[in-house]
Amino acid sequence: MHYIYTNILGTFVYDKELKEVEKVLFKEPNYDEFEKIGDLEQEKELMKKYPEHVYLNKNPDMKILSKLEFKQKNIRKFAINLAKQKIKKSIDTDILIIQAISNIEDLKVVANKLSKRLREWYELYNPEFSRSVEDHERFVELILEKDKEELLKDLEIETSMGIDLEEADLIPIKNLANEIIAIYKLIEKQEEYLQVAMKNIAPNLTAMAGSLIGAKLIALSGSLRRLSGFPASTIQLLGAEKALFRHIKNKKIKSPKHGVLISHPLVMKSKDKGKAARILADKISMAVKIDIFKGEFIGDKLLKDVENKLKKSK
Amino acid sequence: MHYIYTNILGTFVYDKELKEVEKVLFKEPNYDEFEKIGDLEQEKELMKKYPEHVYLNKNPDMKILSKLEFKQKNIRKFAINLAKQKIKKSIDTDILIIQAISNIEDLKVVANKLSKRLREWYELYNPEFSRSVEDHERFVELILEKDKEELLKDLEIETSMGIDLEEADLIPIKNLANEIIAIYKLIEKQEEYLQVAMKNIAPNLTAMAGSLIGAKLIALSGSLRRLSGFPASTIQLLGAEKALFRHIKNKKIKSPKHGVLISHPLVMKSKDKGKAARILADKISMAVKIDIFKGEFIGDKLLKDVENKLKKSK
Repeated sequence: MHYIYTNILGTFVYDKELKEVEKVLFKEPNYDEFEKIGDLEQEKELMKKYPEHVYLNKNPDMKILSKLEFKQKNIRKFAINLAKQKIKKSIDTDILIIQAISNIEDLKVVANKLSKRLREWYELYNPEFSRSVEDHERFVELILEKDKEELLKDLEIETSMGIDLEEADLIPIKNLANEIIAIYKLIEKQEEYLQVAMKNIAPNLTAMAGSLIGAKLIALSGSLRRLSGFPASTIQLLGAEKALFRHIKNKKIKSPKHGVLISHPLVMKSKDKGKAARILADKISMAVKIDIFKGEFIGDKLLKDVENKLKKSK
Repeated sequence: MHYIYTNILGTFVYDKELKEVEKVLFKEPNYDEFEKIGDLEQEKELMKKYPEHVYLNKNPDMKILSKLEFKQKNIRKFAINLAKQKIKKSIDTDILIIQAISNIEDLKVVANKLSKRLREWYELYNPEFSRSVEDHERFVELILEKDKEELLKDLEIETSMGIDLEEADLIPIKNLANEIIAIYKLIEKQEEYLQVAMKNIAPNLTAMAGSLIGAKLIALSGSLRRLSGFPASTIQLLGAEKALFRHIKNKKIKSPKHGVLISHPLVMKSKDKGKAARILADKISMAVKIDIFKGEFIGDKLLKDVENKLKKSK
């Protein structure tokens, strides 16, 4: 009697004492081959040669298998690699979009935080100018471009309340300003990347909501696939979870009418923002379903539809 | 009868109808001159010329003064500038140190936040490597230096669980990594600036506590002057305010034994950290007083004292 044992490494024939009599190895551990074990030409050949065979892998006897440990080690390595492959494939590329949009949001928080510090620091030196420019990015650019005298001249202020600083004390302030500029530039770059990635993965959604809002919707749902499963009413409220749960807990608090869609241009300029968000969410839900099934591009048409509906309802 | 009126602009002589008869202007509005009004040579000269004079500013008659409005306008401008000057002088330069140390702390938070995002993003691609390096800065440097294959080879890992990424998807990750490196470099620069500024303003404190801990103590007290007024026991607990108030509210919670001094090398390596912090705070309190009165430099001697005391107490 012989034992025939097939695993991903190859097919092995053992005698009664479990000594290896013959083996036919696969050329290369092939992960896709895994599903086909036992269904191989070489096995048939060996079966002819050893008609009184017993299949070790079909009638597993643990005692015998344990003696085959040296083979098992290879099997273990293979099994780990197989798991790795499966994990690899389980990751949808839209997770890159989620990382990118999260990073953009991080960077905006960071730019804001550092700009506030910069203002506080710079205001010791030139408080009048800091108060005259609200936008952080513009403020940072201007203090790098012009010196205190020029800035005060533009404001028609003769004497500043700020302390006079030596160049050595201005350098760390300017270094911080330069860093903030670099962060603003990085935000731009990351947004460009997101734009391309979004157009690739969800062209219809991107045409309708823009890459930033579109990516936020994906991030809030967890994936494009999950987003495509949501009804329009859920999409309408994505990003308003806190307000929604407040409403559910206490019915006296009104239900929210929009989540991240609030920053969509069509919603922003609408008088009835709740209604606009509902109409938009309706078509976005359609756009996402087309994207997930790789349908044709009708995002611009859908957006036009929303615009027309909003015009009519005025 | 004539009126003589002196203000910061000069001295003016008016007749009964309040017409200006003569004036002697100061060459330039001089803010330091303000305290000396009424005590001027030119006034004496004018007094001789108009012996029957009345001092408007010494016997103020509001009705008359209101007619002198045109002068008042100049006075108002002067007064505002004077206030600005006073505000200027009221700011101690140690406020620059407070801004610098706060910025360093901000930047550390930011570098940490962005490094965590970078890891999350990069781990999709190469999770094995991310987990093998704990230090954020080293991690960021390495992923910029070496590609995935090299990094895995160093770890003796053949197959990664991470998804394969195209160059286009790696670029935003690398851009973020480069930004984090820039922030780490900025932290270094700001720390260098702080070191110089601290040595200038508080050489003894800096020698004892280092520029970072020293600056934190100044920031927590509000100014070097306030810090110099604190007893050693307060300095010992600066930075542990939350724990202290928890203890005051609920006596069952133990009183804290150290605040920012916990990160001082001498405290860190001590077994009895509370005691070490107390001994250190004692000498720091002395060092700060010397700094505020611009006394001689004995910071290194004081630090040696602390070391010896700690050695003895072992």
